[in-house]
Amino acid sequence: MMPPEVRMGCVETAACLAVGSELLGQERVDTNSLTVTRFLAGFGVRMTEKRVVGDDVKTIAQAVAGLLKQADIVVVTGGLGPTADDVTREGVAAALGREVQRDADIEVWIRERYAKFRREMPASCVRMADVIPGARVLRNSRGTAPGLLFEIEDRLLAVLPGVPWEMELMLEHDLKPVLEKRNADRRRSTRTLLLSGVIESEVEERIRHLYDRFGRENVTILASAGLVRLLLSNSGPAGEIAPALDRMEAAFREVLGRDVAAVGSGDIAEVVLEMLREQGAMLATAESCTGGLVGKLLTDIPGSSDVYTGGVVSYSNAAKGALLGVPDELLAAHGAVSEPVALAMAKGVRQRLSADWGLAITGIAGPAGGTTDKPVGLVYWAVAGPEGDRCLSRVLPGSRSLIRRLSANIALDLLRRGLIRGGA
Amino acid sequence: MMPPEVRMGCVETAACLAVGSELLGQERVDTNSLTVTRFLAGFGVRMTEKRVVGDDVKTIAQAVAGLLKQADIVVVTGGLGPTADDVTREGVAAALGREVQRDADIEVWIRERYAKFRREMPASCVRMADVIPGARVLRNSRGTAPGLLFEIEDRLLAVLPGVPWEMELMLEHDLKPVLEKRNADRRRSTRTLLLSGVIESEVEERIRHLYDRFGRENVTILASAGLVRLLLSNSGPAGEIAPALDRMEAAFREVLGRDVAAVGSGDIAEVVLEMLREQGAMLATAESCTGGLVGKLLTDIPGSSDVYTGGVVSYSNAAKGALLGVPDELLAAHGAVSEPVALAMAKGVRQRLSADWGLAITGIAGPAGGTTDKPVGLVYWAVAGPEGDRCLSRVLPGSRSLIRRLSANIALDLLRRGLIRGGA
Repeated sequence: MMPPEVRMGCVETAACLAVGSELLGQERVDTNSLTVTRFLAGFGVRMTEKRVVGDDVKTIAQAVAGLLKQADIVVVTGGLGPTADDVTREGVAAALGREVQRDADIEVWIRERYAKFRREMPASCVRMADVIPGARVLRNSRGTAPGLLFEIEDRLLAVLPGVPWEMELMLEHDLKPVLEKRNADRRRSTRTLLLSGVIESEVEERIRHLYDRFGRENVTILASAGLVRLLLSNSGPAGEIAPALDRMEAAFREVLGRDVAAVGSGDIAEVVLEMLREQGAMLATAESCTGGLVGKLLTDIPGSSDVYTGGVVSYSNAAKGALLGVPDELLAAHGAVSEPVALAMAKGVRQRLSADWGLAITGIAGPAGGTTDKPVGLVYWAVAGPEGDRCLSRVLPGSRSLIRRLSANIALDLLRRGLIRGGA
Repeated sequence: MMPPEVRMGCVETAACLAVGSELLGQERVDTNSLTVTRFLAGFGVRMTEKRVVGDDVKTIAQAVAGLLKQADIVVVTGGLGPTADDVTREGVAAALGREVQRDADIEVWIRERYAKFRREMPASCVRMADVIPGARVLRNSRGTAPGLLFEIEDRLLAVLPGVPWEMELMLEHDLKPVLEKRNADRRRSTRTLLLSGVIESEVEERIRHLYDRFGRENVTILASAGLVRLLLSNSGPAGEIAPALDRMEAAFREVLGRDVAAVGSGDIAEVVLEMLREQGAMLATAESCTGGLVGKLLTDIPGSSDVYTGGVVSYSNAAKGALLGVPDELLAAHGAVSEPVALAMAKGVRQRLSADWGLAITGIAGPAGGTTDKPVGLVYWAVAGPEGDRCLSRVLPGSRSLIRRLSANIALDLLRRGLIRGGA
């Protein structure tokens, strides 16, 4: 087997250019490039640059010419529509030193598409029949504007519509066969391990010794609000990738053990719902500082009603008393953010809703409400299960929003670990 | 007054460069550029290009040099950390034909920051004290890596950390004063009207006649999950903008009346919390198909505990009975998704938590669970207040996620209209 470095040498590079002034405003970002990145990754092609420019011929031409010098594959999306704004065709033509030409066949095809939907073709739409000499024209069966595909020496330049639904079809239908031919023996595939209840830097320490064995460039760590995703990748001929990823997964699992919550793109809420389903157990939640976020995460997932009965958002002390039966004396003696109250909430909701598991969170999400004894970020989690209960506490860093997201994910991990043991 | 075209002529342009190989992967997109775009828009600066490149000195240098030729202001984010990957400093230095130099003062400051948090500074962290001659060094009070600010002839080059929380502070603290000075007589300002309980296309019909008066380019409609935001903009010298926006706002309000929920960037949850606060009233929620989402939206906002006591996630019929006192017979006779049950939930949670207002949602978010009589998307909302109760029902379009978000926003709007009347 060739060492990874040698294989990396022949990995193709790609760049994306998204065209559209709306992608330079205050609200939207280009996300087509993610689809393109995923698509190309399957052929071992690595994204090296992304750009977004407005609807301007000269800027588009400069960007296309620049990117063609840097990457093997350049994918341009957007600006192929019929309005005066849509000047990607003209920009690409300028980059290649060519001129757009009206294609009579495409014009007929566009007219027929309008006729088929019994709509009159606005005069401006004829512009979509402009093509660039040397391009293969990609028919758009989900829309109107055709795409263009150039093979210029060793490079590939694809010009696709910006509508995701239309672009995706052209990737599958037109680019896939071309890439399959180009990259037959250098596929790249990725498998994701979801870790929960861990800290990114500690994970890195524990797995560092595996980098040499599998290649540093084949391991990516992504951390977000208490969850860590480990992306294991491998390149090579199509038939060799899955067994290689199996070996990688086994090696990482040996080190990470129970911290691996799942394989795949799922979330921690999906993991616990699946575990509850396997055990035929019902869950109830009692949330204070997360205010419903855990319930929201669980019910984001279709079918969660099988195993999630609901719960209480006990944001006030009154709600903790009235709906969970937390005694006033306990609240007075220890405060709402305390181990005894967290445990009473978990046990209370479990009992009141006749659930197998009760999960509770109480904390100070800030920005106000902290004291020296109980600073902002102090959170108690409790889980009550068939074989007892367990409490955890930490002081979390960050903004109110981060503290709440961390709190929710840590809660779900506490439950996950309880479910592994079969009792809290 | 100059026509808009003439004023646009002197608008400054900006470009963003996000550095980080993780932003070229299959999962994440750069979103810092949105924050930068919003920030700069306040000074009439228009974003004209965005790029993302990996952690590579040569590529960074090429991108920075290229963008400095095209835009008046270039903002680079990311790649300022201590690891070997972080080479933005070196890339920017190369673009400017300069070399990085260790700054002894910054080194001391970084060591002190680690000491303050009682952590030992890893040896690699000293790299963060490397600066580029000619730069103003921006201290990072929310993290460690300093930023760099260059004024090169008429151009501005800002190099900021990629962590949003750190970057945002430097924009406010360091860039704002510089931009205020540069762009004193060409501000562009935007005022947002939040509309709720309306449909985008209807709003457009109602306001269309105002486009000519205020300029089509000064009015933007953004719709998202049942909320419509109307962005009213105006450009000109600092002193003239606010009165012009006041006139615009008055004209749009005259047409839109009570559909305007608020002015500003706030959300509908903030609007109802503020109305509750003004009326000294407490709210409780009972959520079925939204599973905690309304509670989450309310408690996203600091200080919500003043007026939000909490509530129940009554995902199962058992929870509706045990926690809200909804009679089994009612559930059996009408089904969980029905007007009588929605009303019983709202009244039940209001009474059990001794709240002034009870807000309830029950519906079928899908994808499964729909029938001919009760299709996916059917939702009932109820509000119970000091002077009675009210119920609303609709069949919502879209995915599970969209149905849930629409349901939550429509619920909050129903409460808002109840609060305007002072009773449901």
